[in-house]
Formats: sequence, C-alpha cells, structure tokens
Amino acid sequence: MPDKFASASARHNHLMISELFTVRTGSRLATDVTDLVLQFCRPLGDGLCNVFVPHATAGVALFEIGSGTEADLELVLEGLLPRDAAYRHRHGSPGHGRDHVLPAFVAPSLVLPVLGGQPALGTWQSVVLVDSNGDNPVRQLRLSFVAG
Amino acid sequence: MPDKFASASARHNHLMISELFTVRTGSRLATDVTDLVLQFCRPLGDGLCNVFVPHATAGVALFEIGSGTEADLELVLEGLLPRDAAYRHRHGSPGHGRDHVLPAFVAPSLVLPVLGGQPALGTWQSVVLVDSNGDNPVRQLRLSFVAG
Amino acid sequence: MPDKFASASARHNHLMISELFTVRTGSRLATDVTDLVLQFCRPLGDGLCNVFVPHATAGVALFEIGSGTEADLELVLEGLLPRDAAYRHRHGSPGHGRDHVLPAFVAPSLVLPVLGGQPALGTWQSVVLVDSNGDNPVRQLRLSFVAG
Repeated sequence: MPDKFASASARHNHLMISELFTVRTGSRLATDVTDLVLQFCRPLGDGLCNVFVPHATAGVALFEIGSGTEADLELVLEGLLPRDAAYRHRHGSPGHGRDHVLPAFVAPSLVLPVLGGQPALGTWQSVVLVDSNGDNPVRQLRLSFVAG
Repeated sequence: MPDKFASASARHNHLMISELFTVRTGSRLATDVTDLVLQFCRPLGDGLCNVFVPHATAGVALFEIGSGTEADLELVLEGLLPRDAAYRHRHGSPGHGRDHVLPAFVAPSLVLPVLGGQPALGTWQSVVLVDSNGDNPVRQLRLSFVAG
Repeated sequence: MPDKFASASARHNHLMISELFTVRTGSRLATDVTDLVLQFCRPLGDGLCNVFVPHATAGVALFEIGSGTEADLELVLEGLLPRDAAYRHRHGSPGHGRDHVLPAFVAPSLVLPVLGGQPALGTWQSVVLVDSNGDNPVRQLRLSFVAG
C-alpha cells in the first residue's frame, strides 16, 4: 500500500486544534487577551493561530496596552463612529448602531505566526479584544491553530 | 524507505482547495456572500478558510446584514472617505480616489475558522463583500481552504 | 507499524516556512513590499502566506501603489487620526499617540492565498507596509507560509 495514501488519510484525521474561551470584557473597550493566546499556543509547534470573536459588535486588534492607547482608541472611535450619528440600526442602547459598524474596521479575525509554540509578536504588541458594546459584558473568543 | 519522506511528498502533492467565484455587486456597497462561503466549506473538514477579493477597491468584512448596518456603514464611510475630498488619484468617476483608500481599512482578506465543514461564525455575523466602487458591478471572490 | 503515526510524526517535524526581513521605510507612510512577498513565495507551492509586522505602530495593507493612493491614504489618516488630537500616549514625537492607534485600523497581519508559488493578487493590488511613525526608519516584516 503506498505510503502517500496512508499519510493523506492521516492528514484528514488530524483535526485542527480549536478552542472557545469566555472573556469578561465588562464595559471596557479594550481587553488584553495576550496571555490566553500565549497559553493556547505553548504546547503547539509552528503554524498559524487564528484569533476570532464570533460577535457582530466586537473586533480583535494588535496594539500596545497600558500606555494610553486604549483611551486614544476610544477618542478616535468617537470621531469615526460618533454615538449620536443618525444610525439606521435601532436595537439596543442609543448609539448601538455604531457598535455594529465597528467590525467592518476592526475585524473580528486576526492571524498570528507561531514559532515553536510562541506567537512571533513584537515587544509592544498585545492581542486585544475590542468591544464598544457595553451591553454584552461577557464575550467568546475562539483560538484555532493550523500546523505548518 | 522512511515513511516521513513519503508523507512529506504526499504533503506537497496535496493542493490547497481554492476556487474563484464571480459575485454581482451592482451598485451595492455591501453584498452578502455568506451562503457562498458556507457551500464552499461544507465538504471540507477542519481548517482555515481565507476569503479574498483580488481587487484594489473592495474589501471583505464580517458584520450583521439586514438590520440597517449596510446604511450605517455607508454613513461612516462618507465621514472617513468623503466623496468630495481632494484625492490625488484621478482615474474613474469623481470621488473614485476614496475607493482606492477603502481596502487599507476594510481589508480584502479575511480568515475564518472552519469546524467540520462549518465556518464558526457567530449568530449575527455575515461575510460581506464591501465595494464602494459602483463602476465595477461584477467582482471576483477567491475562497481557499487549508486543512488543520 | 501503522503508516498514519509515522506520517503524523513527519507532519509535526515539518516546520512552517517563516522568515524575518528588514525593510527600510524611512519617513514614507507606504512602502511597497510586493516583490519581497513574491520572491518568498516563489519556491513554495499552494498554501496561505501570512504577512506580519511585529511592531505596534505599523500595519500591512493591500492597495494600488503609484497612482496617488499613498497621498490619499495620508489625507484620510490625517482625518481619522489627527496629529494634534489630545492623545493620552505621551512617548516619542508630538502626535505619536496616533501611530499607536493606527494598527487597530490597519492591522499588522494579512493573509494571502498562494497558488503554485504565486500570491493570487489582483492586477492592482500591492502589498504595502503602512507606517505613520517616521521615528523608526527601519522595520521588520515576517513572512510565514503554511502549505495547503
């Protein structure tokens, strides 16, 4: 029996490593999830890690946490997506329409290169769940790994 | 003969599953392509699906379709990329310069985690082709799948 | 010995192809790195290529280079992230706060489908390193490839 068919079948039996996590975001715009991503990747080898939020009013971003950028992002979002604009979307709290536009700009999906179980992040890069929707204080985050 | 060379060669013979689709966008800013993505992924197993538009004036996003967000996105884009700004780009219809800036913010590439042939989308997430360029009513969309 | 364990182990020994490059961005907002990506992918087969900048004040985008869009992006960024806004972030040159918000909108990670060693880019798509931070004239770019 040719090895190549055996290995192809082994390959199809090999499931992607994917896990769903719960993250408490409260009313914070930016929640640092770097540690979660680091822990998830540690036992894995080389590959690509997808960071994904299955929500319509949240996104994932890579930026520096802890030096004021969270507040600066809030400032910029207030310019881009003003709470008091005439949004068509009418569910939820006033200004909730803007939360639904957010993921068009801060996408809910991000891919990280992983080397030897370590995301190859720069020194100042944190993985951040961006959530302008304070009405949902608990969010889900899916991490998925495909080996190289 | 060591199995690992056989399998490595099987691996290189294993092509990525990738298909190019034609999507009629007309003059719509937002075209829902979720069904196309669902159908493409159904026979596939676990892995990552890349949604890609090979165009310089379009992007791909994940947001809720059908509750007014399309109109709200149009409103926000008019603020971010005003039609009447002094764009340097001079080809096409007036204001076409803004269409060329769009993909810097709404990227033409998106990755979805797929489990058992199903993209792990949230309840309100639709895959949306975003196209502010009404001059090109027909677009291409490439879906590519890499198994986990 | 069952082939599938042999091949699974071969699979884990198979490292992702990942390389770190140095890019001179000078004081340019947009640096075309398409050629670098094309060269990196050429010997590779079918798969996904991740383009990643390990920096907190830069992003990666796909847009047309050479027709004025670089200047138009600068214009749009000046509206979205004005240099003279009251940023909380205080390190670096005046207005440096905006550079830290940039990657929330122009993400530092991008995935390209690759077919037979060629990124499936559209005619007018260039891979662009976007860097609003003139204080760092040299940047790193990581390219990683996972076979399909």
